[in-house]
Amino acid sequence: MLENKNNAKTDISELGEFGLIDHLTSQFEVKHKTTIKGIGDDAAVISPEGKMIVTTDLLVEGVHFDLSYMPLKHLGYKAVIVNLSDVYAMNAIPTQITVSLAVSNRFPVEALEELYAGIATAAKLYEIDVVGGDTTSSTSGMMISITAIGQADEKEIVYRDGAKENDLLVVSGDLGAAYLGLQVLEREKQVFKVNPASQPDLDAYTYLIERQLKPEARKDIIQLLKELEVKPTAMIDISDGLSSEVLHICKNSKVGCNLYEDKIPLDPQVINTCEEFKLDSTTIALSGGEDYELLFTIKNEDFPRIKANPNLTVIGHMTNENEGVHLITRANTKIPLVARGWNALNKD
Amino acid sequence: MLENKNNAKTDISELGEFGLIDHLTSQFEVKHKTTIKGIGDDAAVISPEGKMIVTTDLLVEGVHFDLSYMPLKHLGYKAVIVNLSDVYAMNAIPTQITVSLAVSNRFPVEALEELYAGIATAAKLYEIDVVGGDTTSSTSGMMISITAIGQADEKEIVYRDGAKENDLLVVSGDLGAAYLGLQVLEREKQVFKVNPASQPDLDAYTYLIERQLKPEARKDIIQLLKELEVKPTAMIDISDGLSSEVLHICKNSKVGCNLYEDKIPLDPQVINTCEEFKLDSTTIALSGGEDYELLFTIKNEDFPRIKANPNLTVIGHMTNENEGVHLITRANTKIPLVARGWNALNKD
Repeated sequence: MLENKNNAKTDISELGEFGLIDHLTSQFEVKHKTTIKGIGDDAAVISPEGKMIVTTDLLVEGVHFDLSYMPLKHLGYKAVIVNLSDVYAMNAIPTQITVSLAVSNRFPVEALEELYAGIATAAKLYEIDVVGGDTTSSTSGMMISITAIGQADEKEIVYRDGAKENDLLVVSGDLGAAYLGLQVLEREKQVFKVNPASQPDLDAYTYLIERQLKPEARKDIIQLLKELEVKPTAMIDISDGLSSEVLHICKNSKVGCNLYEDKIPLDPQVINTCEEFKLDSTTIALSGGEDYELLFTIKNEDFPRIKANPNLTVIGHMTNENEGVHLITRANTKIPLVARGWNALNKD
Repeated sequence: MLENKNNAKTDISELGEFGLIDHLTSQFEVKHKTTIKGIGDDAAVISPEGKMIVTTDLLVEGVHFDLSYMPLKHLGYKAVIVNLSDVYAMNAIPTQITVSLAVSNRFPVEALEELYAGIATAAKLYEIDVVGGDTTSSTSGMMISITAIGQADEKEIVYRDGAKENDLLVVSGDLGAAYLGLQVLEREKQVFKVNPASQPDLDAYTYLIERQLKPEARKDIIQLLKELEVKPTAMIDISDGLSSEVLHICKNSKVGCNLYEDKIPLDPQVINTCEEFKLDSTTIALSGGEDYELLFTIKNEDFPRIKANPNLTVIGHMTNENEGVHLITRANTKIPLVARGWNALNKD
């Protein structure tokens, strides 16, 4: 759990609630000029520029993460990323976060330091201020609740409901790797249980594992779209799997969609590992989740601006609502798309 | 746990994550003109008026609440109130909240409906929009994480650090009742364990129990201060006990304080119940916590404006930092004030 197993272990009650918060948050400098007051009062004060974007996500130990293979530094990083991804999906720029943490007394202060180091790394890289939060004990396990705040000009904000018939459906990056990374890590955990001396060779899975343990939010895509002067008509981030997100856009925008199986971008490690695990790579891309790529629709006339870009793939087009939402398979059969995305409520 | 024990019990997995969120949040209408987009996209969009205030609080089952005597409707209500209280403590008006919830599968949908009914009641009464959130499973117990957003003109915002020497220290309402309400409820729980057929007579404790189970945030005091044209120099809400909050103001404002024991406002039920429980009422008021009253400092010249008001009590005055922070007892002895506030991290 700790990167350095030799570290001292300090019981969190030694510092007390305020002492612990001070200890963990003193590293956070205020960088944004919009942050008027960060940590240290009843609430943070922000000077908004344009409209404010607010989103929140909750990560629960044993449901969203397993500390037997998730280093705490990575967990802190990922907890920030999943929230930033939602802000980018509004075509907005995240500027502040609050971090609330519930931890059982099995976690020493040093463990929380690791977690906060990951939070601080993400905050630095994505240029956001940590402006508040709450730290408390739990009766068992760890929970992290992060709220991200972003800013955008009203005319730049992209919702889920703006897709129109004939718009193109575009996805950033590639899909399915994070889910397969989780499968590889779960397999290694089982192997380790049987034989703790085994030395795993994970070279064939490095990309998959990185996508699972250290995802990134696509700030670069938001910047790229601005540079290309392409404003998506609808946008969502892929947290629950491609099919679930396509259905969200279709439902909110009241359109149908034809999604082409042969267009779905897959990394070679995804293809190879699917073969090894005897999994269908399309199913993994459609339902795997946790990719944190951006899925968006653009007007047909904007296609020339994005077509040369290796980070963006056109995977389908929007149709009339009456035509429904379909996957067009490699065999050119048309099957209705159903959401089988990762569902945190069905896991227990 | 449920108000109507005959209710049907629907497993939350029957609805799925999105179905559950839709089911629970469909009752929330957008009321504020500043809410551009509420629930239903990657993030909420808010049109700020003035500066934005952001605060977050986390309530954990077994640490902050006990469902054996806390009805879920009250819990939902209280979870909102504790966050709004922080916004009022900035002399700001709360306008939106997000609600994140982690629940184990021991809670049926009907239990979450009760919880959300309490959230909706608070939202209606305090005129705030529920604009987002996250609902997930937990491996055990319930956790509620709420982020409140408020708005204020920059010149109206009151921080903890503005108190000056000779300012008067003022508190709203009365203190200690919420903590004693908890003691009464804990005692009844123990009695019930021994004799489940016992019929508790709680008439002597109605105020105490209400303060514990259904606290209010002092929106009225913020409005009153505006009407009286009194802007506090520093302000904080009393969540951890009077002594802890006085010390926060003194530390942040770099001042000392003389707090007068005989001025601390106590309800007669607090005095009577302290006698019954053989507790010192001053200790309870200083360290009890969960009162959600406002503690603030005002300039001496503002005293005539507040002195006639039964909701406000002057309990001390600020001194030079070098003089330290003291309680002046009824016997006119001067003892250093120490924080023994309720500390969620020391409870486990």
